[in-house]
Amino acid sequence: MNLQPKGRLLLAPENHLSAAHLAQGSRRSFLRGGVAAGASIASSAALAQASDVSSLIPPWTRSLGGPVVATGYGMPSKHEVNVQRRQSPGLTPQPQASVSFTPLQNLFGIITPSGVHFERHHSGMPEVDPQQHRLMIHGMVKRPLMLTMDDVMRFSSVSRIHFIECGANGGMEWANVAVPTVQYTHGMVACSEFTGVLLSTLLDEVGIDRTLAKFVLAEGSDGSALTRTIPMEFALNDVMVVYGQNGEMLRPENGYPLRLLVPGVQGVSSVKWLRRLEVGDKPWNTREEALHYIDLMPDGIHRQYSGVQEVKSVITMPSGGQKLVGQGYYEITGLAWSGRGKVRRVDVSVDGGRNWHTARLQEPVLTKALTRFRLDWNWNGAPALLQSRAIDDTGHVQPSIHQLRAVRGVRSIYHNNAVQTWSVQADGEVWNVQVA
Amino acid sequence: MNLQPKGRLLLAPENHLSAAHLAQGSRRSFLRGGVAAGASIASSAALAQASDVSSLIPPWTRSLGGPVVATGYGMPSKHEVNVQRRQSPGLTPQPQASVSFTPLQNLFGIITPSGVHFERHHSGMPEVDPQQHRLMIHGMVKRPLMLTMDDVMRFSSVSRIHFIECGANGGMEWANVAVPTVQYTHGMVACSEFTGVLLSTLLDEVGIDRTLAKFVLAEGSDGSALTRTIPMEFALNDVMVVYGQNGEMLRPENGYPLRLLVPGVQGVSSVKWLRRLEVGDKPWNTREEALHYIDLMPDGIHRQYSGVQEVKSVITMPSGGQKLVGQGYYEITGLAWSGRGKVRRVDVSVDGGRNWHTARLQEPVLTKALTRFRLDWNWNGAPALLQSRAIDDTGHVQPSIHQLRAVRGVRSIYHNNAVQTWSVQADGEVWNVQVA
Repeated sequence: MNLQPKGRLLLAPENHLSAAHLAQGSRRSFLRGGVAAGASIASSAALAQASDVSSLIPPWTRSLGGPVVATGYGMPSKHEVNVQRRQSPGLTPQPQASVSFTPLQNLFGIITPSGVHFERHHSGMPEVDPQQHRLMIHGMVKRPLMLTMDDVMRFSSVSRIHFIECGANGGMEWANVAVPTVQYTHGMVACSEFTGVLLSTLLDEVGIDRTLAKFVLAEGSDGSALTRTIPMEFALNDVMVVYGQNGEMLRPENGYPLRLLVPGVQGVSSVKWLRRLEVGDKPWNTREEALHYIDLMPDGIHRQYSGVQEVKSVITMPSGGQKLVGQGYYEITGLAWSGRGKVRRVDVSVDGGRNWHTARLQEPVLTKALTRFRLDWNWNGAPALLQSRAIDDTGHVQPSIHQLRAVRGVRSIYHNNAVQTWSVQADGEVWNVQVA
Repeated sequence: MNLQPKGRLLLAPENHLSAAHLAQGSRRSFLRGGVAAGASIASSAALAQASDVSSLIPPWTRSLGGPVVATGYGMPSKHEVNVQRRQSPGLTPQPQASVSFTPLQNLFGIITPSGVHFERHHSGMPEVDPQQHRLMIHGMVKRPLMLTMDDVMRFSSVSRIHFIECGANGGMEWANVAVPTVQYTHGMVACSEFTGVLLSTLLDEVGIDRTLAKFVLAEGSDGSALTRTIPMEFALNDVMVVYGQNGEMLRPENGYPLRLLVPGVQGVSSVKWLRRLEVGDKPWNTREEALHYIDLMPDGIHRQYSGVQEVKSVITMPSGGQKLVGQGYYEITGLAWSGRGKVRRVDVSVDGGRNWHTARLQEPVLTKALTRFRLDWNWNGAPALLQSRAIDDTGHVQPSIHQLRAVRGVRSIYHNNAVQTWSVQADGEVWNVQVA
C-alpha cells in the first residue's frame, strides 16, 4: 500500500493547533477552542513581546519579487509539484497503451486543470502537425469533405463544460482490490470547458438522409487508428468536434489538434486526434467495440454498446491516503456526475450507509458535467465509514457495489458506478474499504 | 505597429481553399463552393489515383506514439508556443512593477488557462512558502485570529467562476493610442473558477459589530505590502479568500497560496499573497487608493473608490493583427462582462454602429463572469467596422468612447469600458481604430 503517493494532508503537522485544542462540536467551537488556548491569537501585545519583531516578517515581504517575464506560460508553484498525473505501476505492460490518473484528492471545484487531465492511449501519444492534419467526412453523405484545421475552426462554434470518464474508471474495484487513493480508484474522470463545432453542424454541411444514415464511425489518426461507432441520435444531439479545452487548444495527450466529444458516454468514444468520420446504416463492430469496453455478464453474455456513464459520485476529501489530524470540523467534499443529464441530489453517509444527509451542490449544476458537493461534518474521533450516493435528474440512483454485483456479476472491468466507501480509522487515517 | 506579435491567422495560407473558392453568401455556400471546385473533395477514386497512397498517411499514424509518463504535468503543444502572456515593451520602467497581458485573440470559451492569466505586480512576484504563510484577521473584531493555510482550507468552501479585470485595462485607449492587438487593448481581464472561503464566513468567525464595522483593509505579503479598503457591503456579499484557481492551487503570479477576490471590482482590490485583514469603521485611504486607480475628471477632481468594473465587451476574433483571407462566412466572437451582475445582451455592428445585431450568448451566463458571444457574419470583401456593445442585467449599456469622454474627459487612465472598434480593410487586415 505504501507504494502509492499520499494526498495532501488535511492538516499540516507543524505550526498548527494541536489535536488537543480541536474541540468537538461545531466548526465555530473548533476555532474558538484554538483561540481560547492561545495557540493562534493575534494581538499587538504578543507581537511586541517577540524578541525580534523583524523575524515575524517573512523574507518575501522584505525584498523585491521576481519580474514579469516578457513572454511566458505559467506553471504551478514548486510547492505543488506532487500534484501530478500518475501512472499506476504495473497496470499495463506497455507505457504506450496505458493510463495516467487525475489527482482528484488535490483538486477543487469542477474544472480539471488540463495539465493533470487523465490520459489513456492505445498506441501512445502522437505528435500531430496541425498544418498537415485533415478531417475527412464521407460515407453515406451527399457532399464528402476533407477539412483542414482552419476549415473546422471557421464553422459556427459552441463552448460547453462536460466530463470525460474512461469506461474502465473504478475497474479494479469490481474485484474487491482496495486501491489506496481516489487518484487510482476514480482518477479516470475529468471535466473541462470544451469548444468546437457541433457534429450536427458538420453533418448538415455534408448532407445525410435521416431515413438511411443511422451511425457515424469516428477514427483517430494515432497509430492505433482507434475506431468507435456513434449512434445517430447521439451524433445529432450534443456530440462535438472539439479543438478547444479550458480556453486554449487541446493538449497533445488529449487529442491535439482535434477530437470527438461524446458527452456522457465512456471516454473511448470521444476519439482523439480525429481524422475521419464515416456515415453508415449499421454499427461497424470494430475491434475496440467487439473485444473491449464490453461487460461480461453472469450468464456469459457480453453486453456491448453500454457506453453511457451512469450516475456516480465519490468523496475526494477525506479520501484514501489522507489523514485527519484530530477531532472537530471537516468539510466533506467530492464530485458527482451522470452521463444522462444533471445531478439532482447527492446524499452523504458517515456511518456506512445507515443514515444519509443531503449535501450542498455547487451551482451551476450543468448537464453531463462534474458537480461539486459539500457537507459539514464534525468528527468525534470514532471510526467512521464515509459514502456518497448521487441521484440524477432521470431518477437513476447510484447503486451499492452489492446491488451492482447482483445484476452484473463480478467478472466485469468496465462501467462500475458503485458507491465508494472510505474508512476513517480512530487515528485519522483514511482507507479504501468495501463494506460487507 | 509591427513590433507586436500577430494573432492566429483565421485561415492558414497554404493547403486551403483559395480565396477565389470562397463564395459570397452563407457559410453553407462557402463550403459547397469549395467542394464544387474540387479543392477539398474526398473520394476513394481520388485516393486510389494518388501515385503513392502511403504518402497520404501522416508519419504519426504509421508509428507508435509517446508513452504515458509515470508522473507528470502536461503542457500545450509545441505548435501553440506563441500563445503566451506578453509584457508590453516600454509600458513600465521596472519589470517588477509591470503587467503581462492575456492572449485573448487565441482563446475560446470563458475559462482563461491559468498559464496565460494576466499578471500585475507592484513589487514583483514573491515566492511564498505556504507552510510559513499566515493570515491575520484583527481590528474591530471580538476574537482576532492568526490562521495557517491548513486552518483556512478547513473552513466551509465555495467555488465560483468570476472575472478579474485590472482597473487600467484599456487605459491606453483613452488617449487615442491605437494599440494593435486585443491582447494589449483588453488583455488585463481573465476568468477562472475560484475556490475558497467566503469572507463573511471568516468575519462571522472573528465576530464583528455591524453597527460599527464598516470597512475591511486587505494587505498583501509581497514587498509592496499592497493595501486596499473593502466596503463592508462588499465584504459580506460575495468576497472570497481564495486558494484554488481552475481546479488547482493558485499560481504564484496570481497570489499563491492565498488571495482576496472581490468579484466585479477592479483587480487591485483582489489583493494577492493575502496576509492581513483588518476590520475598521472608516476607509484607510492608503497610497494605492489615494494616488492610483483613481479617475481624474474634467473639473480637476479625483474620483476615488470607483472600483466597480462597469459593463464592457470586446470582439476577440476578428481583432487587431489578424487577417481575413477572402470573403465568405466568419463567426464573430468575443467576451462581455459586468461588475454589477450578469450580461443581459450583446449587440454587434459591422458598420461602425449604424446597425446592430443581437449576438448569441453562450450558456451558462454567470454573474460577474466573462460571457462568450457569437454572431454569424458573411464578409462581402468591403471595408467593415466591427463593434460590440454589452448591456447588463441592471440595464447599464456599454458607452461609446465619445459618450465616455463627454463625462470623464480625456485625462483618465482607469475604468475605460468604451465600445472597441476593429477596422477590417479590403485586404482582410484588421486594425484598431477609433471612429470619429
